Amino acid sequence: MEIIKNLNKNDWKETFQRPSIEFEAISEAVDEIFREVEKKGDKALFRYTNFFDKAKLDKLKVSDEELDLCDSEISEDLKDAIKIACNNIQKFHNTQSIVDVKVKIEDGINCWQKHVPIENVGLYIPGGSAPLFSSVLMLAIPAKLAGCKNINLCSPPNSAGKIHPAILYAAKEAGVKNIYKIGGIQAIAAMAIGTESISKVDKIYGPGNQYVTAAKLKALQYNTAIDMPAGPSEVLIIADQSAKPGYLAADLLSQAEHGPDSQVILISWDEMIIKETIEELKGQIELIPRSNIAKKSLEHAKIILCKDDNEAISLSNFYAPEHLIIATENTSILADRVINAGSVFLGNYSPESAGDYASGTNHTLPTSGFAKSFSGLNIFSFMKKISFQEISKSGLNNLAKTITCMAEEEGLIAHKNAVKIRLKD
Amino acid sequence: MEIIKNLNKNDWKETFQRPSIEFEAISEAVDEIFREVEKKGDKALFRYTNFFDKAKLDKLKVSDEELDLCDSEISEDLKDAIKIACNNIQKFHNTQSIVDVKVKIEDGINCWQKHVPIENVGLYIPGGSAPLFSSVLMLAIPAKLAGCKNINLCSPPNSAGKIHPAILYAAKEAGVKNIYKIGGIQAIAAMAIGTESISKVDKIYGPGNQYVTAAKLKALQYNTAIDMPAGPSEVLIIADQSAKPGYLAADLLSQAEHGPDSQVILISWDEMIIKETIEELKGQIELIPRSNIAKKSLEHAKIILCKDDNEAISLSNFYAPEHLIIATENTSILADRVINAGSVFLGNYSPESAGDYASGTNHTLPTSGFAKSFSGLNIFSFMKKISFQEISKSGLNNLAKTITCMAEEEGLIAHKNAVKIRLKD
Repeated sequence: MEIIKNLNKNDWKETFQRPSIEFEAISEAVDEIFREVEKKGDKALFRYTNFFDKAKLDKLKVSDEELDLCDSEISEDLKDAIKIACNNIQKFHNTQSIVDVKVKIEDGINCWQKHVPIENVGLYIPGGSAPLFSSVLMLAIPAKLAGCKNINLCSPPNSAGKIHPAILYAAKEAGVKNIYKIGGIQAIAAMAIGTESISKVDKIYGPGNQYVTAAKLKALQYNTAIDMPAGPSEVLIIADQSAKPGYLAADLLSQAEHGPDSQVILISWDEMIIKETIEELKGQIELIPRSNIAKKSLEHAKIILCKDDNEAISLSNFYAPEHLIIATENTSILADRVINAGSVFLGNYSPESAGDYASGTNHTLPTSGFAKSFSGLNIFSFMKKISFQEISKSGLNNLAKTITCMAEEEGLIAHKNAVKIRLKD
Repeated sequence: MEIIKNLNKNDWKETFQRPSIEFEAISEAVDEIFREVEKKGDKALFRYTNFFDKAKLDKLKVSDEELDLCDSEISEDLKDAIKIACNNIQKFHNTQSIVDVKVKIEDGINCWQKHVPIENVGLYIPGGSAPLFSSVLMLAIPAKLAGCKNINLCSPPNSAGKIHPAILYAAKEAGVKNIYKIGGIQAIAAMAIGTESISKVDKIYGPGNQYVTAAKLKALQYNTAIDMPAGPSEVLIIADQSAKPGYLAADLLSQAEHGPDSQVILISWDEMIIKETIEELKGQIELIPRSNIAKKSLEHAKIILCKDDNEAISLSNFYAPEHLIIATENTSILADRVINAGSVFLGNYSPESAGDYASGTNHTLPTSGFAKSFSGLNIFSFMKKISFQEISKSGLNNLAKTITCMAEEEGLIAHKNAVKIRLKD
């Protein structure tokens, strides 16, 4: 944990340096797996799943029986929790709709946009140390609300060839039926290319490690879109004297426990708050099961004593955190000045874990500085806008001089002719 | 030109195969140029501009004098045309706004999204055989309307070290001041990394050849977003007996003249229309200056005699054309069934060139099948959505059981603690 005072603006870039992916080191594996999946289809998928996940499968798709069974494998409490979270996520995402309006540019020239769901989408849920069934809801609910027709969900099986029942239950609850036992680069390749079992999709969504991110960037070369490149999770907290050190420490730890590469930053102009939060951290960290992971993450955490709230918000906008917690007396003053962030949590009673699970906002958010340019997932991530235009003969006549002059100057005479021939008649 | 009858559904994929980029062949050049720009900054840019564009420069930025001068270097007619196009593009894109609403999920839990402009954007205008000043308008106008603060525009100079005055004039008209004489991979690298002269941007937009597309995909590895991967331009026309063969031929040619790799497709269930359009093509192609280019493109054009309008729209949705012209008696029947397309032109008086220049819609559109997942540029391409939430103590109390149950099941106990510690007080 580094405690930084009197940070000079020239040092911002270095201070906030994130871990970068060694794409060149990974690309050979990614290229090979894509080539194999392209050539051998399911056969390659079985082989890689045996190799990476130690699971011997003869079918990739989760069967109806397995889907039925998951109901009895998780607690009623968890089912209720998933239902409530579902409901809140639907409620929030359902407000993200838009009415397509026709614009009359001038007499006889009407243009409009139409929002159309992406037909085939692929959702990826990583395996690893925790069964991320909450991510299933965050990906599948907006996909359903947007109206996507075919939804594939891929997640790696355990060595017994099973996917965690909470993941299956969440998928069912969100209305996803095509679930496949496949993870890592090979899952992304399968959805980007298509195999006998797994149909090609138009866009791939979801979190993942650096191999999955490299594979998603490769998918773009196969004419498959992606939601965003994902990096390690991040939180940045801005706190003043009104904040509670115990809460701050708990929030920092809930980020730190994600993984050793999680990014944890606390910024305050109040030295006391910083001191007390560090004390709290020391106590709380010993009480969590994943303390070893959290300790590794905190090793590279940054605790910054800044001049004032102006410098704090500037630093935050410079870093562009995935999660931003504003724990100050008057949150709206700083909230209004947020330019770059994925999701913002205001006040003492809005912990990141509320947004991670159940308040309704999406937890699939831009990391690695991509909060400067990407949005977190929303229903528009599952739609595209198609533009339309309808021009009458008199409308075209009014535009003719403009179009033909510009086409001529660009040296595109066939473009000019396409107008002229219509007005000659 | 291939005339296809009785097309079997099994052959759709092969029939509509697009040219693909040989990324592996290009990647070495892309990697090297990015490395050089990262290491040597402007010095590398000068060297590559000398090598690729045969221009010896000592300054990359277009000077105020050069910007002033462009006014006298283009005709008054062209200036008027650019102004009218500007006006229509503004009018159409200005309607793409949204009111951010606060959603009360339940008592004490308020969530909302806020649309915020991307602060630093980079626009790329290719060089080549035509000065694409119309693309300047299509990129810069929505960037300005969205409220982007810093707009860089890069375009390669000619061997005399100049950018075409129409490009400069269009940039000025759209309000862009930071214009740089740099093209190709090195321009994308400069904007993704940043050099002494050219500031790093958050997102890069604009058309380009396969080298530029490969460089844009590389930019993603440098935490820089891109608008979309761009491929050769495409048009697909669906026509019935009511269409005018002369118009159809003119539209097909206005696509074909873009480049030898332009994709040109005509689909009809009326054999006569197909026959007459082919006759028209033969006549019209001889009358355009770029007939050699158009002939090369038409060599791989597809003319498809299909069964009926159902098959026609299914084929079109399968192909997902950048531009779709529906030249049928009742256009709305088919228009309502468009699922995949970039921009759609309805009826006999809506040529593609109207949308290319001046009707107001954007001409920066998804190609290579990306119309299944990407939108054409719009003002939301220049913004991101940030989510916010504000929860009261009682609101958190209501959510507590849901959050803690889910966190526990995912094995993330620090997440659970972040809620518990707040409710203990």
